[in-house]
Amino acid sequence: MKFCSECAHPVELMVPPGDNRPRYVCPQCATIHYQNPKMVLGTVPVWERDGEPQVLLCRRAIEPRYGYWTLPAGFMENSETTAAAAQRETEEEAGANIELGPLFALINVAHVHQVHMFYLATLRDLDFAPGEESLEVRMFTESEIPWDDLAFPTIHETLALFFADRARMRARGSDHGYGFHTQDITRPMRAAGEP
Amino acid sequence: MKFCSECAHPVELMVPPGDNRPRYVCPQCATIHYQNPKMVLGTVPVWERDGEPQVLLCRRAIEPRYGYWTLPAGFMENSETTAAAAQRETEEEAGANIELGPLFALINVAHVHQVHMFYLATLRDLDFAPGEESLEVRMFTESEIPWDDLAFPTIHETLALFFADRARMRARGSDHGYGFHTQDITRPMRAAGEP
Repeated sequence: MKFCSECAHPVELMVPPGDNRPRYVCPQCATIHYQNPKMVLGTVPVWERDGEPQVLLCRRAIEPRYGYWTLPAGFMENSETTAAAAQRETEEEAGANIELGPLFALINVAHVHQVHMFYLATLRDLDFAPGEESLEVRMFTESEIPWDDLAFPTIHETLALFFADRARMRARGSDHGYGFHTQDITRPMRAAGEP
Repeated sequence: MKFCSECAHPVELMVPPGDNRPRYVCPQCATIHYQNPKMVLGTVPVWERDGEPQVLLCRRAIEPRYGYWTLPAGFMENSETTAAAAQRETEEEAGANIELGPLFALINVAHVHQVHMFYLATLRDLDFAPGEESLEVRMFTESEIPWDDLAFPTIHETLALFFADRARMRARGSDHGYGFHTQDITRPMRAAGEP
């Protein structure tokens, strides 16, 4: 941020009176420009077949991570709820007809100022189709999940949590018992010399 | 938003190519200025006495809702997690020494572009003190909660959910069993003639 969005004067980075963090402040009109984390909302869209779950994934047609696989998800918009955002992204990216379930995972990605949340969802049918931001959409059983070609750590984490919950449910012969999970993703460690 | 924060040119409200919502776009440098919902993070700080919970509330020293009672909560900052934000706000507003528990409630307030989240927390001691944004901090048993003088609907909702969970736990003689709750607060209905 270089200029005040209210009066176009150059902003200054300073700690406002009574605050304890540097903010972009306009010395002309005194507006304080706060910057806050964003929410990314998505779903784990599930289709049950012979007692085994299949999960819908989309192959990204956009950067970052073009060509990698993701759960349908995207930035939450103003004036919508977390549930509405998750449903909208699933329709936009996968053309999927879902019944939204409960919130399943909330994952902090503090170093990029994001919180990712995923709702469980049940596919009503298999009439999905890639939206503008997807190259391809298909169903995956647990053994088919392309773990090495997932787009983001939060996708890996959410799928791992989902199949762990399923394993626990299977072990006690229950169809119910998904948990609600909170996790933090920290910046990956890099070897010396890596950027 | 009136001016581009990158180049100071006046922005225009338009639907960018490939998008389906109006955004503030800079016709000079082509920056799209997305606006997204913000997260408000807080806690339900609890002190158990003779098997009955007391909850810490703060009386607001700032607008909006100056003089009304609230759970400690505030806007999540960049580079922190939801849990860190909840802990920080509790320390800042109530000077409280807490052990953070699980996420308890996530409440959408879509008409003001906010998502409010509250963690359960256990007070380690009663050595709290009002911070700069609080007039007063004190403990309330359920029968003492000032329901008519709470600052925001999400505070009312979270406290109601907390005491409902406690009633269920009491009914089955358990110390465990808080749920995770998601809710939507919609704009209150107004009578004809009201603003």
